[in-house]
Amino acid sequence: MPEETLPTRRAGRDGASRRPVMLAIAGDSAAGKTTLTRGLVEALGPGRCVSLCTDDYHRYDRAERAELPITALHPDGNYLGIMEQHLQLLATGAPVLKPVYDHSTGTLTRPELVEPAELVIVEGLLPLHSRLSRACFDITVYLDPPEKIRREWKIARDTGERGYTVDTVLGDLERREPDAEAHIRPQRRNADLVLRFAPIDGHDDPEGTPLSATVMMRPTIDHPDLTDVLAPGPSRAMHLGIDRDSDGRAADSLHVHGYVEREESMAVQKSIWTALGTPGSDPPGSDPPDCLGRLEGRRGADERSEPLAIAQLVLLHYLMERAR
Amino acid sequence: MPEETLPTRRAGRDGASRRPVMLAIAGDSAAGKTTLTRGLVEALGPGRCVSLCTDDYHRYDRAERAELPITALHPDGNYLGIMEQHLQLLATGAPVLKPVYDHSTGTLTRPELVEPAELVIVEGLLPLHSRLSRACFDITVYLDPPEKIRREWKIARDTGERGYTVDTVLGDLERREPDAEAHIRPQRRNADLVLRFAPIDGHDDPEGTPLSATVMMRPTIDHPDLTDVLAPGPSRAMHLGIDRDSDGRAADSLHVHGYVEREESMAVQKSIWTALGTPGSDPPGSDPPDCLGRLEGRRGADERSEPLAIAQLVLLHYLMERAR
Repeated sequence: MPEETLPTRRAGRDGASRRPVMLAIAGDSAAGKTTLTRGLVEALGPGRCVSLCTDDYHRYDRAERAELPITALHPDGNYLGIMEQHLQLLATGAPVLKPVYDHSTGTLTRPELVEPAELVIVEGLLPLHSRLSRACFDITVYLDPPEKIRREWKIARDTGERGYTVDTVLGDLERREPDAEAHIRPQRRNADLVLRFAPIDGHDDPEGTPLSATVMMRPTIDHPDLTDVLAPGPSRAMHLGIDRDSDGRAADSLHVHGYVEREESMAVQKSIWTALGTPGSDPPGSDPPDCLGRLEGRRGADERSEPLAIAQLVLLHYLMERAR
Repeated sequence: MPEETLPTRRAGRDGASRRPVMLAIAGDSAAGKTTLTRGLVEALGPGRCVSLCTDDYHRYDRAERAELPITALHPDGNYLGIMEQHLQLLATGAPVLKPVYDHSTGTLTRPELVEPAELVIVEGLLPLHSRLSRACFDITVYLDPPEKIRREWKIARDTGERGYTVDTVLGDLERREPDAEAHIRPQRRNADLVLRFAPIDGHDDPEGTPLSATVMMRPTIDHPDLTDVLAPGPSRAMHLGIDRDSDGRAADSLHVHGYVEREESMAVQKSIWTALGTPGSDPPGSDPPDCLGRLEGRRGADERSEPLAIAQLVLLHYLMERAR
């Protein structure tokens, strides 16, 4: 029997010879996980990078959840044991047949084959929930927008893309809050990097100023030396420093202010992109791709955020250091 | 975080402490796999036994297959690497999220959680295709009806239950024949037991006589001593012997003739069932359950086959010896 012709087994064997680099992006519903992930995946290209969303591991579809006293945020509302199993398989280079939750219809549908690429990005509500799942990742990120901003994003998205009414979304937010407090936000404590897009405290930005980015880098993993790649900075609009987290722990922080000029931002972006050796499919020396910083899908095709682009490039820096 | 409340992880831990006994039932389409399996599962009860069908690992749905030069019998038409992965997980006591192929609609749909019970029965077209999958089983069975009879069964089932026309089924049989020869029938060589329901060669049974059963037992595994449980036999209608397989290899054989009287068959069935310690959920000493030997779903609710019941009891004997 021609066992050597089985495509999934061949891929599994190849994959196993080289472990993928695994990045987790955790955060509450509408915290910006998909927007952040989309730019990274597109910049690296599908040949180097695959992404998956752990919402696919929901145990119940939307109709079943409506009948049950359980939200999609609760661990028991998800096949977390299977999620762990699949993360472990991917981390060792094996393919998985991943379930699929269709957000547009709220149904669980035909699963799909995921074969690990060199880089695997896993985003979702609970990828950092358990010790076993955390152990699968090389880098862990928690997205931590202010609640007020996240609620605005969630209302805009769920009424726009998922067919909910504003009242339904508000009710949902209230019903989910105990689970968010108990199960989602505790993951922040376990992330190597905490990303926050928000107005900078105490800074009186004029109306319409894009959100600033803060990347908190905890000493739980090695960090790339950003002092080089932030040249020609540091500047008033972009700087590295040391902060104390709300729990008192010290961490490095990168601040990118929303009012950073496009020109200054592009110089830094190009500097990082070049330092990374142009990791995407474009020829070496190319400019960083337009997908970085893009907010499309949320607020219109042309809108972009320089702080988001810088944050994505910093994440690419982490990924590329580990992929080498 | 309350990791200990995750139901799938708890089940995985418990399950891992005791390996399930794994039985494979391989054979071509409409060879009788589901009929054989149904009686075993029902006799043991859902608390002791789960079954799954490897048709669920089809890579393409019916509409896609119609557009492709590939049949459901070809290894490349299935996620065989994922099937192997899931068999390995189940064999070590871990749960899997199994894909689901819906034969009534020909679509791939929402997957379902399978947690290994004490006994796991895996039936399908290709469970014995690869060395890795075969290694997951304690006992392997190949169902080997004469082609003429299998074709009659397939036409009856596919036109009755799956909405095909006779012409479609005949075309399908022809189109599948090269794959059946290349990939399905070679599995017979790797089975510990070969089951054949057919008229006994050279025996001129009157019209309407049920099919006889031959259970060929190869020396690849230890066999239970049937001389005891076949008491009050051996008889003219039921006997043990040694046969030579078509490839020349010697093997033990149990013959149960279709004309065996219900009374004689029931005495043997009761003898085996009692020797097994009444493995189902009924009180010890109960009679073997009616589900054994039942042909329902294929030829009407009341029809039953004594040779099938005996063959199922022999399989239960193998299972219970290993489960002890």
